[in-house]
Amino acid sequence: MNTCNALSLPAYTINPQFDLDGYAKIIQNSMLPSIAQLKAAQSDFLYSSPESFTALTSDEAAISKIKGVLEDLLALKPTDIIVCGIGGSSQGSKAFVHALYGEYNLQNPRCYFCETVDPLSLGTIVEQLARAKTLSAEAFSPILCMVSKSGTTQETLINAAVLLDFFKTHTTKINERVVCVTQKGSSLSQVASKEKFGLLFVPEQVSGRFSTFSAVGLLPLALMGININLIALGAQSALTRIFDEAPETNPIIQYALWLFEQSKTHAIAPFFVSMPSLASSAHLFKQLYAESLGKKDKKGNRVGFHPTVSVMTQDLHSIFQLYLDGPQNHMTTFIKGVSTAPHSHTTSIPTFFEHQMCKEASAVECQMKFVDAVLAAYTDAQIPHTIIALGAVTARILGSLITEHMVTTALLGKLYEISTFDQPAITLYKCKL
Amino acid sequence: MNTCNALSLPAYTINPQFDLDGYAKIIQNSMLPSIAQLKAAQSDFLYSSPESFTALTSDEAAISKIKGVLEDLLALKPTDIIVCGIGGSSQGSKAFVHALYGEYNLQNPRCYFCETVDPLSLGTIVEQLARAKTLSAEAFSPILCMVSKSGTTQETLINAAVLLDFFKTHTTKINERVVCVTQKGSSLSQVASKEKFGLLFVPEQVSGRFSTFSAVGLLPLALMGININLIALGAQSALTRIFDEAPETNPIIQYALWLFEQSKTHAIAPFFVSMPSLASSAHLFKQLYAESLGKKDKKGNRVGFHPTVSVMTQDLHSIFQLYLDGPQNHMTTFIKGVSTAPHSHTTSIPTFFEHQMCKEASAVECQMKFVDAVLAAYTDAQIPHTIIALGAVTARILGSLITEHMVTTALLGKLYEISTFDQPAITLYKCKL
Repeated sequence: MNTCNALSLPAYTINPQFDLDGYAKIIQNSMLPSIAQLKAAQSDFLYSSPESFTALTSDEAAISKIKGVLEDLLALKPTDIIVCGIGGSSQGSKAFVHALYGEYNLQNPRCYFCETVDPLSLGTIVEQLARAKTLSAEAFSPILCMVSKSGTTQETLINAAVLLDFFKTHTTKINERVVCVTQKGSSLSQVASKEKFGLLFVPEQVSGRFSTFSAVGLLPLALMGININLIALGAQSALTRIFDEAPETNPIIQYALWLFEQSKTHAIAPFFVSMPSLASSAHLFKQLYAESLGKKDKKGNRVGFHPTVSVMTQDLHSIFQLYLDGPQNHMTTFIKGVSTAPHSHTTSIPTFFEHQMCKEASAVECQMKFVDAVLAAYTDAQIPHTIIALGAVTARILGSLITEHMVTTALLGKLYEISTFDQPAITLYKCKL
Repeated sequence: MNTCNALSLPAYTINPQFDLDGYAKIIQNSMLPSIAQLKAAQSDFLYSSPESFTALTSDEAAISKIKGVLEDLLALKPTDIIVCGIGGSSQGSKAFVHALYGEYNLQNPRCYFCETVDPLSLGTIVEQLARAKTLSAEAFSPILCMVSKSGTTQETLINAAVLLDFFKTHTTKINERVVCVTQKGSSLSQVASKEKFGLLFVPEQVSGRFSTFSAVGLLPLALMGININLIALGAQSALTRIFDEAPETNPIIQYALWLFEQSKTHAIAPFFVSMPSLASSAHLFKQLYAESLGKKDKKGNRVGFHPTVSVMTQDLHSIFQLYLDGPQNHMTTFIKGVSTAPHSHTTSIPTFFEHQMCKEASAVECQMKFVDAVLAAYTDAQIPHTIIALGAVTARILGSLITEHMVTTALLGKLYEISTFDQPAITLYKCKL
């Protein structure tokens, strides 16, 4: 691992620190074998186990197929990318788009995430598309990405049906504008073939919430102009550190152990992000930990912890009072990122109000003052927390961060002795529909 | 109470039901006196206690002042309303705007909530304003609402300083375009007087998170074209039911008791909303319960419960597995609303995919199928939950719903024997800045 890689990886500070000595056996018997399994799966391009999510960013053949489809789509000069997908099919790409572009829709092309079935959301997306066409009919060029691993996700099929109806009356070359990402043989893949839609596959054994680095995430992100090579590089650097570092210096082994140990006495795990654009990343982590670990183990014990999302500084004016003075049942992970918005570091805050704390400081300096005040309050109050500091919020560093949480989840699954990659209760609920 | 009122109030279904008999003493000694206090405060237009938040919607003099300022602002034909405020100064108005218009920004005038200090969010808002001016320079007419009860909220002062800088180079009549909502005598009120900005007051004794129905919430909402008379009517209907119904038929007494009782064994209170546009309402409830109740009581015990926000159907693909199979430490409040988006009830979902569940159904029918499946799963799994059904998502019904959660919070404060309306830990944290 070269120094440059080391510097660009997230930095973990765990508080309270704990002595690894007491965990030698658990590391030896559970964690190192699990890491060996994940490492072996990194070259399993047949995707024969759920652990093979670690292979996705090294799979040159798969990435080359994504780039092929991408080229056809970019030839249409897309103005609007609509991602129809929910859960594992949307959360990963949404995390990147929000972190890099913010939650407003000013980038080019514009990007919409169409998740649940909701007349208000869907109606507004359709209205925005219609407006975009009114503003520039000849340039209007929307793309629909339908992402559903099973190919039968009801929200996705229903929303896509409405959007295809819109496409029918407002665009030409419809079949060239639609691309489906699903597993081989699914009913959606059959529709795609019949209708001559674009088609990319997600490996059957890779669980939805671990599929961000397949076409599920990489295709929409590449369409949005995000460099997927850098994402892959970030993911690979993270894996190299996880696979090669000894437990004493391996932040992910330590972080997983810390969560495991704390969760014995702390039921709630807030993911507290330093700025709103990282909220979607925290929601991805919520999904990873909740859906993977919230289970009955072999003995019938209900395991897992309750991940939540908190956003600075809004939540200082909301749930922070509870964090400090309420029941001490939470173990917090702070994700401390620094804005990469244009001019964040150079634009200074103008002085207008006498009582204004930041005067002629840069916007980022000002933001960091708040973050550091919160971290100081947590240390003073001795509330268990881990700080994950991101040198910057870039495609590469997000690639590392997301990979690290996927691996942490897998390690925790072994520690809790449950099956990490399924979701048995969800399957039961779907029967109610 | 007339039938029409009864029909338009939220309907509560509490599961498991519980026998009120065991609570006769607690109702008599704690809850009824608390309700009497809130009822007496309803005509306290001097706002001599924090309970006097119940007076806000009957305060004709205050509402008439809001309407006066509103008239001046509407004369400018506003195109963009920017609300600078955070926590209690933004969450209430955001709840209404998102519920009624959705999270996209297509309504006229457009509305921006400028909460934390974040270069990416703030930069994008400024960019959007600049674009709006480019599209129609002569019609461009932004309004800045600065909302800070203390008048010293740093995020608000900093963001407003940046926006005032933008106003200076892009608009005329700046002082007519700015209105401050703060308490009497605050440094912000002095700035407002000096600069000849609009100025409205929030009563000093009314706590920020209970101030939605003062100028804090009503001014921005009226600017957005939302009928504040209907909001007031909704709040008043809710208060009438709370004040006049006997415990046996009083849903709010029962709901508060249920939360109190369940919280002895369930640390987490998800507010699970039926659609994304209600998420901001759930965040308001999170703030109410967390900041009001997460405290040390007189004996030094840490009380309160951990409110969280879940959104259908996204969270079915995220945290739902944990809810069903993980530790049973949660008591859920479902907020079941029906979309009021145009054509929700009449537009039918086109058929395209063979495996599509909803075919030629209305969008709302389709949405409700998902919601009902979730509620059935909760009943089957015997997970404690309350369903609050909203006949429709309207300004009036939201006025009722929000009032009911404010009162529930106040009742719980008495039951936990803490001071509901302060936030001592936040004050401590602010010293770190």
